[in-house]
Amino acid sequence: MTNQVSLAQGREYLAIPGPSVMPDAVLRAMHRPSPNIYDGELIEMMPTLTDDLRRVARTRHNVAIYIANGHGTWEAALSNVIAPGETVLAPASGRFTHGWAEMAEGIGAQVEMLDFGTASPWGFDRIAEALSADTEHRIKAVLAVHVDTSSSVRNDIPTLRALLDDLGHPALLMADCIASLGCDRFEMDAWGVDVTVTACQKGLMTPAGVGFVFFNDKAQAKRAAMPRVSQYWDWQPRANPEMFYQYFNGTAPTHHLYGLRAALDMIHAEGIENVWARHEHLATAVWTACEIWSEGGALHLNVADRAHRSRAVTALRLTDGLGTPLRSYTETQLGLTLGIGLGMADTDGCFRLGHMGHVNGQMIMGMLGGVETAMAALNIPRGKGALEAAAAVLAGQG
Amino acid sequence: MTNQVSLAQGREYLAIPGPSVMPDAVLRAMHRPSPNIYDGELIEMMPTLTDDLRRVARTRHNVAIYIANGHGTWEAALSNVIAPGETVLAPASGRFTHGWAEMAEGIGAQVEMLDFGTASPWGFDRIAEALSADTEHRIKAVLAVHVDTSSSVRNDIPTLRALLDDLGHPALLMADCIASLGCDRFEMDAWGVDVTVTACQKGLMTPAGVGFVFFNDKAQAKRAAMPRVSQYWDWQPRANPEMFYQYFNGTAPTHHLYGLRAALDMIHAEGIENVWARHEHLATAVWTACEIWSEGGALHLNVADRAHRSRAVTALRLTDGLGTPLRSYTETQLGLTLGIGLGMADTDGCFRLGHMGHVNGQMIMGMLGGVETAMAALNIPRGKGALEAAAAVLAGQG
Amino acid sequence: MTNQVSLAQGREYLAIPGPSVMPDAVLRAMHRPSPNIYDGELIEMMPTLTDDLRRVARTRHNVAIYIANGHGTWEAALSNVIAPGETVLAPASGRFTHGWAEMAEGIGAQVEMLDFGTASPWGFDRIAEALSADTEHRIKAVLAVHVDTSSSVRNDIPTLRALLDDLGHPALLMADCIASLGCDRFEMDAWGVDVTVTACQKGLMTPAGVGFVFFNDKAQAKRAAMPRVSQYWDWQPRANPEMFYQYFNGTAPTHHLYGLRAALDMIHAEGIENVWARHEHLATAVWTACEIWSEGGALHLNVADRAHRSRAVTALRLTDGLGTPLRSYTETQLGLTLGIGLGMADTDGCFRLGHMGHVNGQMIMGMLGGVETAMAALNIPRGKGALEAAAAVLAGQG
Amino acid sequence: MTNQVSLAQGREYLAIPGPSVMPDAVLRAMHRPSPNIYDGELIEMMPTLTDDLRRVARTRHNVAIYIANGHGTWEAALSNVIAPGETVLAPASGRFTHGWAEMAEGIGAQVEMLDFGTASPWGFDRIAEALSADTEHRIKAVLAVHVDTSSSVRNDIPTLRALLDDLGHPALLMADCIASLGCDRFEMDAWGVDVTVTACQKGLMTPAGVGFVFFNDKAQAKRAAMPRVSQYWDWQPRANPEMFYQYFNGTAPTHHLYGLRAALDMIHAEGIENVWARHEHLATAVWTACEIWSEGGALHLNVADRAHRSRAVTALRLTDGLGTPLRSYTETQLGLTLGIGLGMADTDGCFRLGHMGHVNGQMIMGMLGGVETAMAALNIPRGKGALEAAAAVLAGQG
Repeated sequence: MTNQVSLAQGREYLAIPGPSVMPDAVLRAMHRPSPNIYDGELIEMMPTLTDDLRRVARTRHNVAIYIANGHGTWEAALSNVIAPGETVLAPASGRFTHGWAEMAEGIGAQVEMLDFGTASPWGFDRIAEALSADTEHRIKAVLAVHVDTSSSVRNDIPTLRALLDDLGHPALLMADCIASLGCDRFEMDAWGVDVTVTACQKGLMTPAGVGFVFFNDKAQAKRAAMPRVSQYWDWQPRANPEMFYQYFNGTAPTHHLYGLRAALDMIHAEGIENVWARHEHLATAVWTACEIWSEGGALHLNVADRAHRSRAVTALRLTDGLGTPLRSYTETQLGLTLGIGLGMADTDGCFRLGHMGHVNGQMIMGMLGGVETAMAALNIPRGKGALEAAAAVLAGQG
Repeated sequence: MTNQVSLAQGREYLAIPGPSVMPDAVLRAMHRPSPNIYDGELIEMMPTLTDDLRRVARTRHNVAIYIANGHGTWEAALSNVIAPGETVLAPASGRFTHGWAEMAEGIGAQVEMLDFGTASPWGFDRIAEALSADTEHRIKAVLAVHVDTSSSVRNDIPTLRALLDDLGHPALLMADCIASLGCDRFEMDAWGVDVTVTACQKGLMTPAGVGFVFFNDKAQAKRAAMPRVSQYWDWQPRANPEMFYQYFNGTAPTHHLYGLRAALDMIHAEGIENVWARHEHLATAVWTACEIWSEGGALHLNVADRAHRSRAVTALRLTDGLGTPLRSYTETQLGLTLGIGLGMADTDGCFRLGHMGHVNGQMIMGMLGGVETAMAALNIPRGKGALEAAAAVLAGQG
Repeated sequence: MTNQVSLAQGREYLAIPGPSVMPDAVLRAMHRPSPNIYDGELIEMMPTLTDDLRRVARTRHNVAIYIANGHGTWEAALSNVIAPGETVLAPASGRFTHGWAEMAEGIGAQVEMLDFGTASPWGFDRIAEALSADTEHRIKAVLAVHVDTSSSVRNDIPTLRALLDDLGHPALLMADCIASLGCDRFEMDAWGVDVTVTACQKGLMTPAGVGFVFFNDKAQAKRAAMPRVSQYWDWQPRANPEMFYQYFNGTAPTHHLYGLRAALDMIHAEGIENVWARHEHLATAVWTACEIWSEGGALHLNVADRAHRSRAVTALRLTDGLGTPLRSYTETQLGLTLGIGLGMADTDGCFRLGHMGHVNGQMIMGMLGGVETAMAALNIPRGKGALEAAAAVLAGQG
Repeated sequence: MTNQVSLAQGREYLAIPGPSVMPDAVLRAMHRPSPNIYDGELIEMMPTLTDDLRRVARTRHNVAIYIANGHGTWEAALSNVIAPGETVLAPASGRFTHGWAEMAEGIGAQVEMLDFGTASPWGFDRIAEALSADTEHRIKAVLAVHVDTSSSVRNDIPTLRALLDDLGHPALLMADCIASLGCDRFEMDAWGVDVTVTACQKGLMTPAGVGFVFFNDKAQAKRAAMPRVSQYWDWQPRANPEMFYQYFNGTAPTHHLYGLRAALDMIHAEGIENVWARHEHLATAVWTACEIWSEGGALHLNVADRAHRSRAVTALRLTDGLGTPLRSYTETQLGLTLGIGLGMADTDGCFRLGHMGHVNGQMIMGMLGGVETAMAALNIPRGKGALEAAAAVLAGQG
């Protein structure tokens, strides 16, 4: 690395796996006076807002909006259906399943953890074994993280549903789509998900601070049978409010609602199927570049099989702890901020590329070009032709 | 009311008791890309941010920040110190004490309610009686709403503290300052408050979505003795985080933190004592006008005694249900939105004036002038000279 | 004036006669990336933008947009129709007619000045005399300032047109509507105005930086006969461009165009007739208060007769040079900035109230309430009941 | 090109040669209420603003600010020093010298044009010949476009200065730095430039609408001898105002001044020498990629010799008129807008890359990656390894 002047002065690109790049339209919509919270346009826009949220999650069922981050919606969802002492099954493909499981323990649940490491999707044999062993149906829910942001593993939810059905196990299927909603294909109703937990700052392209819990009738039946649910977490009035304040159990997140409205407008103007296709196409370009780089022996994709990779985030590892120097280089020399490694043994070696939400072809080439530049500057061995191959993918010729 | 053209086209003035008027500096600070949440300026600004929050609440103790509205911080505070089955005492001067009490019931607490109606401050005799009767110290906390936003009653917290001390009752003194922080004088440590609950969208002049719980060592001792506190509500890691994400139990409310930073800069540039003095001066002008208007027999101030009135909100009632028509007139004809009545028997008769946070002399005269105009248009009997008397107060001659 | 804490912290109100208060929608529209200037939405929105400008000026004729302030459009208009050595007639009712006349001298014109002082509208006798004496038709244009921002005098353009017609004088009627467009009724075509000059930062509610020249066929005929017009000022390609850049003789004022688009949307959503009615109604309230205050002997309205007053600005004078202290008080103590006196003998005694553009009933009451407060603080003698009388006017009962 | 879904949804990148990418800090600074234009911070910030402008242009002499675009400042500069009938010499390396020359004709000047085509810098022999032939010193100024935005030719101003000095020719050296200021090294005083013309929307990173004329004592002496200069264009009061409004001959461009202030803060925080070094480094990466692509035979760099290329814009040509399809592809499929060809014979074949102002390493790689993608999609023959070579340059290894 030479002691050249920094080339970072310019538009900074935050390519971390959330918060993602916020669209101008979203930020502009949030730059406004506080609205009346008792009357007028904010109140009137709620029905279409919740409809449009449902359309993103592909459900005709209920949605509760929470002023909370993703961790908050984890707790919210659990609080509605898991009573102290009840058991949840947690098949983990990365740090965030553990996080959700700890949240469950925090409300008094028993957690049966199935740890599949940090680079592999669920093993259905072990899950089947655990469910089969639960003849008394102590397991009330399976905590299914669709995409684990830390590992970039993407799990197969329809197969998990089929497994539950085949075994006749009544546990609720609770999916965490925080890192996948609006990026990877997700079909709540078609896939038989009972509870979906997500948040706004990734594929929904809205500044962090609002989260969502979608739930179906089966989940609501469990809710109805709960001994007690705290008021703030209770999803019932939020999903079926008689008064506007009940949507939020108190004061509305006024500015976030305007931002979310703008983001949903963008998503549905593009079409959710097109949003998914765009993310898949862009992710394929990212994978292609990374696979070629990895031929040099220094870079490793955390998830070996494309079939198990997220289209929203890609976790990588560099030998010799070079992940941190690489991130430092792109940020200070090029204006490109990459994600740190999370939940991995070799923290300094790991880094993550976020490619979720408001992201297009030229951004992906800028991100990949930044990584190539940093690897060059740091003399990291790498395969040749990665960028051109990525461009070819974007061009439909990969 | 004539069928004249509307005179509302212009800058709309939201004079409701929260959300309050957002300063341009706050909105501008929030109009920015998402920052890195693992490194850099956002992380670095947290120590001064929490210090500056403490300075507003006048405490040297702990602060936990929650992505939540005021109701959420009610639940958060309770969850840290009240176990299911424990009792709280709730002396109510308006709707919001009832709300907080319901939140306590939602987490399994027993509530001993002392209802002082919707127009009176606490009666200390009855409180003393209740505390004295509690010889077994079943009451673990007193839920003390400093200013009840619905009634605009302001309660006397130092006297409540003295009462607890005099009786040697160990209950925690928990204060709700949602409607008073940054408006009415409030001194957490000097007044002996153990837990303070507040939110950002009133005196703190930041769009709704973030709340705060301040707590002292006595409160922390009770927390430490709790059988279980859910992770999202646990104030311990939030107040003493080892990692940045622990401030928020997950993703930070990135944009709100920038807004809050700007708001705290404004408050401390003015000086919190000056902020209080400004609110007191402006409130006095509002009271003066309302008292003169009330000479006409149609308008009534909800709180008779100035000593018990909030400097942030003023609740009023008009005969013949004219509150709603008056609010409708100011909003559609003048560009002035007033607060609805909350928790009162005569909903249509009641309305509230918000005068909290980012509010100055010309705004107050615009608000009062709007009310005068509406009363004229609606032929509501009223005393003469209200506006000039308010101006005289502002001029230091009232 | 006491040494109380300032009551200015809050939303500042800039009540000067331009720049006026910018609507949030306008500022929001300008907060965006630069657009492509060769293709796309900016290019496509120009025809409706120019149409909507014409609708405000009530003309079916041509409009040329200039990146320039009002002074620039003065020079632009003159440069298209007045050759060096030609004569213009300038009937002055305030400083700005002199300013325009100096601009004419700057391009080599001869100016025949008719000065009617700083408090009176045109005297048609003297104008008729001057025109009648010009038997050789050396006078090529009459510079007619509709509303003079400095004096707040509003002149009668239809009568001037009738005079020119009666006398059969061929001079162009050039109107300066900088301070009146979008405030006072102005009808370019119906009133027989040949050239209209205006700018964006007053009734058009857009940050200063863009101006407009409207011209009809008679004016264009004079343009066509000019020996030379500089490229930047030439209105021909601007009004009838073949390429987008010709609208602006070079790079477009990209962000201003988005702001202007938002402002025109607001104007036409309200309806230009309603905009005028609103300004007249609000101005009447202002006059009413000022007339009552003036009964105290210290305050004087600059224009005695309501029939000659602008509905956008009101010039006032206080005895003993108290204008400057009053302005200082409202700005530093109340958050209200008033306009300085311009072009008057007694600078410190004079001040002006701007009430143009994005202004509504509650704002007017805030402005008047601020003035009342300042007069009280400064012990300025004044009539009683001014604010209530203004409110009564707003209520339709004045 | 496949009929795949568009990959353009994301942050759009406007990589045209001006307007350039606006920094968030600039847009945020402009999102504010109108300030007082008679008193206060706007007035007070002018001296440092003009100082900081001078520092960018590397001059200790005068600066006049105009509300105008670049064409306006062309006319402004000429109007101060060239009287009708006087002659200017115009050595042209692209469309914009012709534009400036036409502007000169528009004010009555005689233009002696030396056309060096659209791909070559000035030929000093021909210039010397023209100046030598002008024994009567009819030529009053040389119009020297430093970088012609249309051709991306960069001319050698110090050599032109030396030539004038060697020949003892007294003509003013007038430089157009619209496309180079804040990008390519430019040293007004050290290079002996008498008048510098520029605008804000390129290297100065501020939305179009303000321009600047810098002038030294020699230029001022010519100004002082002019028979007449129109008021709006007169640089004297603008450069040495007694009153604030004289800076702008009327109303200030309020919001632009705040934006400009933010942009100058960024430039001087980085350091103008560093800004130049960054642009040179980034431009070298762009050239490297383009040169490699050109090995395929389809792409041609307009300027053959790196020594004559702008570091702010690169003009290119594709065979078979493929420039327009390429631009269309990057815009609609990738979110990358490139500049059209201007002033070239083969319009559809030409396109331009803007790399000026707020631009960093990751952006350049995104732009180049977008071009590679488009060439792939359009099956345009091209050399291999362009992107990696560009990355190597950015890495300091090119």
